[in-house]
Amino acid sequence: MELIFLGTGAGRPVKERNVSAIALQISQSRNFWLFDCGEGTQHQLMRTAYKLSRLDNVFITHMHGDHTFGLPGLLSSRAFLGGEEPLQLFGPQGIREWVETALKLTATRITYDIHIQEIEEGVIFENEYYAVEAAKLNHRIESFGYRVTEKPRVGRLKAELLSAMGVVSGPMCGKLKNGEDIVLPDGRTVKAAEVTEPAVPGRVVTILGDTSPCDNALLISRDADILVHEATFNASLPEKALEYGHSTTLHAAETAQRAGAKQLILTHFSTRYSAEDLPPLVDEAKSIFPFTAAAYDMMVMPIRRTKPE
Amino acid sequence: MELIFLGTGAGRPVKERNVSAIALQISQSRNFWLFDCGEGTQHQLMRTAYKLSRLDNVFITHMHGDHTFGLPGLLSSRAFLGGEEPLQLFGPQGIREWVETALKLTATRITYDIHIQEIEEGVIFENEYYAVEAAKLNHRIESFGYRVTEKPRVGRLKAELLSAMGVVSGPMCGKLKNGEDIVLPDGRTVKAAEVTEPAVPGRVVTILGDTSPCDNALLISRDADILVHEATFNASLPEKALEYGHSTTLHAAETAQRAGAKQLILTHFSTRYSAEDLPPLVDEAKSIFPFTAAAYDMMVMPIRRTKPE
Repeated sequence: MELIFLGTGAGRPVKERNVSAIALQISQSRNFWLFDCGEGTQHQLMRTAYKLSRLDNVFITHMHGDHTFGLPGLLSSRAFLGGEEPLQLFGPQGIREWVETALKLTATRITYDIHIQEIEEGVIFENEYYAVEAAKLNHRIESFGYRVTEKPRVGRLKAELLSAMGVVSGPMCGKLKNGEDIVLPDGRTVKAAEVTEPAVPGRVVTILGDTSPCDNALLISRDADILVHEATFNASLPEKALEYGHSTTLHAAETAQRAGAKQLILTHFSTRYSAEDLPPLVDEAKSIFPFTAAAYDMMVMPIRRTKPE
Repeated sequence: MELIFLGTGAGRPVKERNVSAIALQISQSRNFWLFDCGEGTQHQLMRTAYKLSRLDNVFITHMHGDHTFGLPGLLSSRAFLGGEEPLQLFGPQGIREWVETALKLTATRITYDIHIQEIEEGVIFENEYYAVEAAKLNHRIESFGYRVTEKPRVGRLKAELLSAMGVVSGPMCGKLKNGEDIVLPDGRTVKAAEVTEPAVPGRVVTILGDTSPCDNALLISRDADILVHEATFNASLPEKALEYGHSTTLHAAETAQRAGAKQLILTHFSTRYSAEDLPPLVDEAKSIFPFTAAAYDMMVMPIRRTKPE
């Protein structure tokens, strides 16, 4: 799994920061997901190795234009590029009208199925490998945070031990891998638990939409391996942040610290901050939560699997 | 007057070409106009000296997404950047719903008046210096071409001649400039026509939306100083061009030649053509109309005033 930050700015694009979008590469396939889609997201994707035809899930945190204006063009280009697999689009109330109106008025021909789901809180997506949970945050309009939970991976078989016991690969190993005990031809029982390494816990990535501090931000960030949190303003502007439903660097750090997150990535910086202004913002957050970094456009962040204890 | 080609590609952005948009700088002010607004047009404008607050007229040729998806973001950023002057938006049926739906669903706050006009053929704009005429072209959906006509500039007074006649600058010169004859204190009459240089003809810039060859394309391009014409395909694909309501290089050149245009700029190239493919496309057009060039992203083209004969 890896994150690529395609846009890390708030409100409008500036030369060094595009508006919001984050790609999440999925480890079990060549597919990727997208969180928000500001204008120019498809242009940023052209700078990566990711192919639009491999995008299968899009999660929109909220309807503000700096998170949604890139959606019609991206969906259109996915068709131009021969995308045929269905695409699922999750977002708040309004996302269906936005996409359907845009495609209808511009006579855009889409060659694949788009399944649009206007979400409520709870588990909104689940497959063999992942579950995605949504929770409402605290912004001027409805805004969601998404918690992506990778399911635990079954532990590997202890090959040397099995070999010493005379168990060769084949159907018996398949059963052991599935957690079933087996009986050998000589009558001995081999317990799956005894010949299997511990399960490897899945990774948790939480990506929040625009928000002021709130209980749901804490809940959905609990023990996350990576928490992506907006920090529109620096520590000197808490009133401004709260007035506009945003967070400061300190707000984000407090949430990360209280939630027990392992790493905090700040993003969605106000256009008032240049790239040179960001290190002090990170330092502010580090005063509360040391494992903090600032996202920048095209930053690639591998998400490491936590070793079992 | 100058044109800046902000996007010269068809359908979807590619690395070297963004989707359609052309800025026209107006000579009598620091304002500029925009023709079409594909996704990422505001990003391209950030690479110029043009300020969004100085944009006062936007002309959309047709509703296809590669000409319209950049509009909501551009209008939003103009507000973010403190734009307060009204903006006029001209376009085909659907342009009002597109803009109003986008701004409503995304709760975008616009700080200035947007006057949206869904146009018919004819003169759609006129002020002291310019008139803009629209004509319907031949595309899969309603598509307009725009002819921008600069009004003739009154000729300068012949300063040496006036000096010899004893006419000093002041109210008398003002009257002569306005074309009024004057009577000097000694009773002599000075005829304005005799002490004024010939009027300087205005420039004509014609910018066509997507189109197959048609009579209206010819009419609206008549004697244009610059004709901006799509050439989605090369000369080998006339059937494909006509099937999709587009033009080849030869179609564009024939229109320029028959219309008596002075210069032809090709744009809106299919994504199949790389930058290296364009010189042969220009050569195809030159076989019919020698004064042809291919537009590229960020190309600046000054529009020279024709000297009076």
